[in-house]
Amino acid sequence: MKLNSLFLGVFLCLGNLVQAQLNSTVHDKEIESLIDKMTIEEKVGQMTQITLDVITKGEDIYSSYEPFELDQDSLNKALVDYHIGSVLNTANNRALTPQKWYSLISQIQETALKDRLEIPVLYGVDMIHGATYTVGATMFPQQIGQAATRNRDLVRRGAEVTAYETRASSISWNFSPVLDLGMDPRFPRIWESFGEDPYLISELGVEMINGYEGEDNDLSNPEHVASSLKHFLGYHAATSGKDRTPSYIPTSALREYHLPAFKAAVDAGAHTVMVNSGIINGIPVHANKNLLTGLLKNELNFKGIVVTDWADIENLNRRDRIAKDDKEAVMMAINAGIDMSMVPYKYEVFYNSLVELVNEGKVKEERINDAVRRILRVKFALNLFEHPTTNPKDYPEFGSEAFEKAAYHTAAESITLLKNEENILPLKKNTKILVTGPNANTMRTLNGAWTYSWQGEKTPEYAQEYNTIFEALQQKGKKKNITYVPGVSYKMDGKYYEQAPDQLEKAVAEAKKADVVILCLGENTYTEKPGDLNDLYLNEHQIALAKKVAATGTPVILVLNEGRPRIISHIEPAMQAVVQTYLPGNFGGDALADILYGEVNPSGKLPYTYPRYPNATIGYIHKPSEEQKKAEGVYNYEADYNPQYRFGDGLSYTTFDYSDLKINKTEIGVGEDLEISVKVTNTGNRKGKEVVELYTSDLYASKITPDVKRLRRFTKIELAPKESKTINFIISTDDLKYADNHGESILEPGEFKILIKDLEESFLVN
Amino acid sequence: MKLNSLFLGVFLCLGNLVQAQLNSTVHDKEIESLIDKMTIEEKVGQMTQITLDVITKGEDIYSSYEPFELDQDSLNKALVDYHIGSVLNTANNRALTPQKWYSLISQIQETALKDRLEIPVLYGVDMIHGATYTVGATMFPQQIGQAATRNRDLVRRGAEVTAYETRASSISWNFSPVLDLGMDPRFPRIWESFGEDPYLISELGVEMINGYEGEDNDLSNPEHVASSLKHFLGYHAATSGKDRTPSYIPTSALREYHLPAFKAAVDAGAHTVMVNSGIINGIPVHANKNLLTGLLKNELNFKGIVVTDWADIENLNRRDRIAKDDKEAVMMAINAGIDMSMVPYKYEVFYNSLVELVNEGKVKEERINDAVRRILRVKFALNLFEHPTTNPKDYPEFGSEAFEKAAYHTAAESITLLKNEENILPLKKNTKILVTGPNANTMRTLNGAWTYSWQGEKTPEYAQEYNTIFEALQQKGKKKNITYVPGVSYKMDGKYYEQAPDQLEKAVAEAKKADVVILCLGENTYTEKPGDLNDLYLNEHQIALAKKVAATGTPVILVLNEGRPRIISHIEPAMQAVVQTYLPGNFGGDALADILYGEVNPSGKLPYTYPRYPNATIGYIHKPSEEQKKAEGVYNYEADYNPQYRFGDGLSYTTFDYSDLKINKTEIGVGEDLEISVKVTNTGNRKGKEVVELYTSDLYASKITPDVKRLRRFTKIELAPKESKTINFIISTDDLKYADNHGESILEPGEFKILIKDLEESFLVN
Repeated sequence: MKLNSLFLGVFLCLGNLVQAQLNSTVHDKEIESLIDKMTIEEKVGQMTQITLDVITKGEDIYSSYEPFELDQDSLNKALVDYHIGSVLNTANNRALTPQKWYSLISQIQETALKDRLEIPVLYGVDMIHGATYTVGATMFPQQIGQAATRNRDLVRRGAEVTAYETRASSISWNFSPVLDLGMDPRFPRIWESFGEDPYLISELGVEMINGYEGEDNDLSNPEHVASSLKHFLGYHAATSGKDRTPSYIPTSALREYHLPAFKAAVDAGAHTVMVNSGIINGIPVHANKNLLTGLLKNELNFKGIVVTDWADIENLNRRDRIAKDDKEAVMMAINAGIDMSMVPYKYEVFYNSLVELVNEGKVKEERINDAVRRILRVKFALNLFEHPTTNPKDYPEFGSEAFEKAAYHTAAESITLLKNEENILPLKKNTKILVTGPNANTMRTLNGAWTYSWQGEKTPEYAQEYNTIFEALQQKGKKKNITYVPGVSYKMDGKYYEQAPDQLEKAVAEAKKADVVILCLGENTYTEKPGDLNDLYLNEHQIALAKKVAATGTPVILVLNEGRPRIISHIEPAMQAVVQTYLPGNFGGDALADILYGEVNPSGKLPYTYPRYPNATIGYIHKPSEEQKKAEGVYNYEADYNPQYRFGDGLSYTTFDYSDLKINKTEIGVGEDLEISVKVTNTGNRKGKEVVELYTSDLYASKITPDVKRLRRFTKIELAPKESKTINFIISTDDLKYADNHGESILEPGEFKILIKDLEESFLVN
Repeated sequence: MKLNSLFLGVFLCLGNLVQAQLNSTVHDKEIESLIDKMTIEEKVGQMTQITLDVITKGEDIYSSYEPFELDQDSLNKALVDYHIGSVLNTANNRALTPQKWYSLISQIQETALKDRLEIPVLYGVDMIHGATYTVGATMFPQQIGQAATRNRDLVRRGAEVTAYETRASSISWNFSPVLDLGMDPRFPRIWESFGEDPYLISELGVEMINGYEGEDNDLSNPEHVASSLKHFLGYHAATSGKDRTPSYIPTSALREYHLPAFKAAVDAGAHTVMVNSGIINGIPVHANKNLLTGLLKNELNFKGIVVTDWADIENLNRRDRIAKDDKEAVMMAINAGIDMSMVPYKYEVFYNSLVELVNEGKVKEERINDAVRRILRVKFALNLFEHPTTNPKDYPEFGSEAFEKAAYHTAAESITLLKNEENILPLKKNTKILVTGPNANTMRTLNGAWTYSWQGEKTPEYAQEYNTIFEALQQKGKKKNITYVPGVSYKMDGKYYEQAPDQLEKAVAEAKKADVVILCLGENTYTEKPGDLNDLYLNEHQIALAKKVAATGTPVILVLNEGRPRIISHIEPAMQAVVQTYLPGNFGGDALADILYGEVNPSGKLPYTYPRYPNATIGYIHKPSEEQKKAEGVYNYEADYNPQYRFGDGLSYTTFDYSDLKINKTEIGVGEDLEISVKVTNTGNRKGKEVVELYTSDLYASKITPDVKRLRRFTKIELAPKESKTINFIISTDDLKYADNHGESILEPGEFKILIKDLEESFLVN
């Protein structure tokens, strides 16, 4: 906590305290004056975003020669002839040094300033768990692990570090955070989310926005970046569980589960939003005016940029077939409310189509003025007109030890102890250990995708200096006691799921000799479509390895390192302990070793439901019929709700007792608050952190069947042995509302329950 | 075909040709006069349905003493004191003889006629694949197998036989057909449906209605029964894949996929509808006035009875928690449009609540008059006032050889050959065969659930005289050549999925000695909630048996006998042939043996998509993004659409060639027809039947992303070796409409394709 305070102090000193609100007022006149001067072509250019490979020297627009350099002719064409306003991504899908970023963005900005109106380019990159495309940057746990910390301060601190290191790379726009409801264990990007609870996502999402943009959203501060809320809206809800495939989401669910985090983040001042690439209820979101203009821009009053995801305007024609050609696709998307098209390659098609559409009156000039206004607003807010680049030399903390410690602490608080039979953990330092499994000795799987490259395959090149699980255990334990045999290995240049036995019999032989086996299973790295999954069971070779080492009789500690909860029910009973690391980043090995040896007392909590079977993947937010008890009579139905582990599960090396749940009233009126208190006592012998969660349950609701229970508040506390604390929460009747299918938010009188651990209290709303 | 014609002839002679329409006019005055006389209590009684156990002698209302008999006191209380209008189900969940049905229904009707207004009881039973609760009745394949026949005549004939045998049991109301879209391989009732295509369901659904009610829907014909379309609407679409759990279905999908079969069946004159027990978009369907009154009664103009499913009014309170007590539940359901409550036990609660609600004005008397009018309309139509019972002695064809042949033919045309490497099938009669697997020697699994008992567990008691697969092979082949070893057996008194190895090593030893192994795998019987599934893979013991017998090197023919497509991808490559029998009924063993020995040339076609992986369960109706090809550039997404077998798959022992696809125009205007012809040639050496399917593809649609393709027409033909036939189809622009989310049906100009096998032709709609 001390580090955190110091760190924030630094930022407060450096921070520019001018309010975002003021800033925007300051620039309004300049923006309008600029728009007045702009031709339709110049406006459309601002709305166009291309990927870096398009303007580099290379065989084609899809790749670059290495070492890559910009192609000045392509640059002139794009930025001057076509007035293009935004560039994204790295070249050849590879991280760059801060210096390289600086020099290339400098050249881009210099070219942009050669255009008549001298409008700087807005450069955007996916820096999703640290400045992931910058060599030497500090890699935090992926968002799913950050959610497991349940620690708001750590999440904000991670975003602050990321913003700083992104700006140290001369980049001012970060396509982060993911505020999608991570509701489906099959989805290949659940690990990029904060998990399955709308309130948890809202709380941590706002912290991340505040970390990126500052609490005042002052983007002129050169240590802040513009954030991008993604992917508006309902992206992870695909029926098939596969990326970019159709979803069915009724209005009630959209508003009750998917919207709250976006609403909270828009209210927190986030500057940009990226759109869901999928289809909801038959309609591609990129063509859905009700969602983009009606809900986001009008109802939520979002004033920033709405940017497409990769190629999603042409997808309206080529993939989703609601537009009969590229031009109609542009018309649909821009009229729906898209402000900027991540084209990303053939920008001439988008540009020429939109110019024609405006000239033909099929897209109104007010619509493109609105889009350009939003884009210029962000460029002015970022102070790009005065400082189109930031220079790495002004960022001395880049990759510093303080930053690395922040990443380590986040990893340490994310790791979640799911099972610990007979308190086999923590281990003694002199324990003789076999470390095995495909995730035991690779930095790649600790980080996941979006690390130095899109699918994470280049991590081994850039993360040599950090410790794998095996290396960290060697460092923390006694080196001679730690043996490593892979058992199973991933094919490092194939599909993420390809793997094969690797010294399996040797692993079994070594297991017999060891006091304990640390079995590191999970997944190789993936994201988006290449990460699609057909079978949620853990890979068969890993299952076989687990069965064989368990059969030796040596106790096995299962360490999971995976983007999504792969099913382990075939082996879980044979594991004496289970530790979930998620994708903990470059310091995940160290954090895990400290937990296994007891240097750190684990405090992570599952941010999702861990399923037990591949076709039983319902989350904790569900309706009563999902876990029905036996009925009377012949047709004695029973519904089996059977997760392996539940949302919020996570053990400690100490134990906590809950008592004295109290509410200050048993009846409240509309608009009134209810005060709740509960006493938590550390009943064990170690200091430990505990997450106290408050749920409510609405017993009956007349418009929409109520959920069994919903998380409304949480806090993380630390207790010394035998120490007690009384935790106070306040909820209001606003917390008890639910959304119906007409988009209304409804509060109904009746009985509700407060649930904290196994305690409950009832109250009435009048 | 000869049998069919004869059979229809018999019905036409016996049939009463008075039109349903006329009938209803004839009775309108009597109905209104009766309603005028009725007290509120008498009306509410008509709306109440109880299960048989309630009025039998027994320990409690949930069970009956055996041999069971009615309890006259209970009967008087229910039918006279409470004026109850309808009874359903058997007692103790056990099939009865026709004579027993007759005597018990006679006693019920005699009691009912003691009530002031002498209104007969409407008795309903689930007779879903034959008169399933009558001992000695003719069991057809379950609906999923009937759909595989693609033979409209066979489906109608099956329903005619069922109606006859149901009336031979004195029962006049059949809770059949299932018109749900069988879209989810996980769902425990997909086998009760006609599969995953709306057009196929519509076509066969209408045949079944015509079989039950007659083409003129003349229910006064004592060989017709009132049918019940179930389960209105969207029942199989549960997100979790489990029975009676929530669904999300947007308006476009509801109308495009789920509604057509119900609309077609209502238009065909069906007399009753049963309601979906689940929740759509947060709202239990039993409380959804938009669906029950707005869509079904007003828009579709349905004039018959809307009955709840089992206990679904009390479920609004107890399970789905949108009603705060039983009385509010009754109010919601009746006001939503429910006409009759399948209570089924505590009828006093429903009755007293509804009487109070009417007296309090919370349910309008017009609403219950409407309900009673609908109920009386069916009772009059069935001629129950004049003939409250039908006597088995008047039904000499019950269980006749002609009926059994009909069931056999349906089974034979349903069985679907999915793989036949090196034409291992058909087998020679002298082939030395090992028959193994848990489905090889049991009548229970051939029939599925809803056979002599709810979960099908009592089939062994009643179906001894029919042939299991093993027995049929012994009869058709040379007995000494046929060996049977179970290998794996089901636990016959446990949960449907419980099973264990049973002489596994002996099966392997016998496999080595055999020329061929016939490996009979699949599922034990289940329906509804007890049939819920967590893992779509075939059971592990069966997988192990398959691997072991295949490892012997003896060719293995996999015979599937299962309610839903359990995943076989772990073993399929090792199987030389794969034959799907579905749930073929009491003559399924005989039909299968005839196919295996080549007496019958298989012609069944899959009515669903057979998945290859548990988390890849998308059907053939899907959007283009589900099977996306590689894109350009870095993010070269690919979507892997990977079923094991596709909708419509099914091989023959001969081969068919398609050629000369022609359309009569390349442009059509709104309302115009398009004529399509295609030549089909039997290019093999055997006579065979082929299903010719016509699909259309809409290239672009501006409101809803179009499906990749959709079935619009099909026909089943028979061709002698070398014979060709030219098949003609006509489609109209109505077939090319799609539903949007406002409930509109839209026809858009543009390009469409006709697809028949691998042939295609384009045309324009202007």
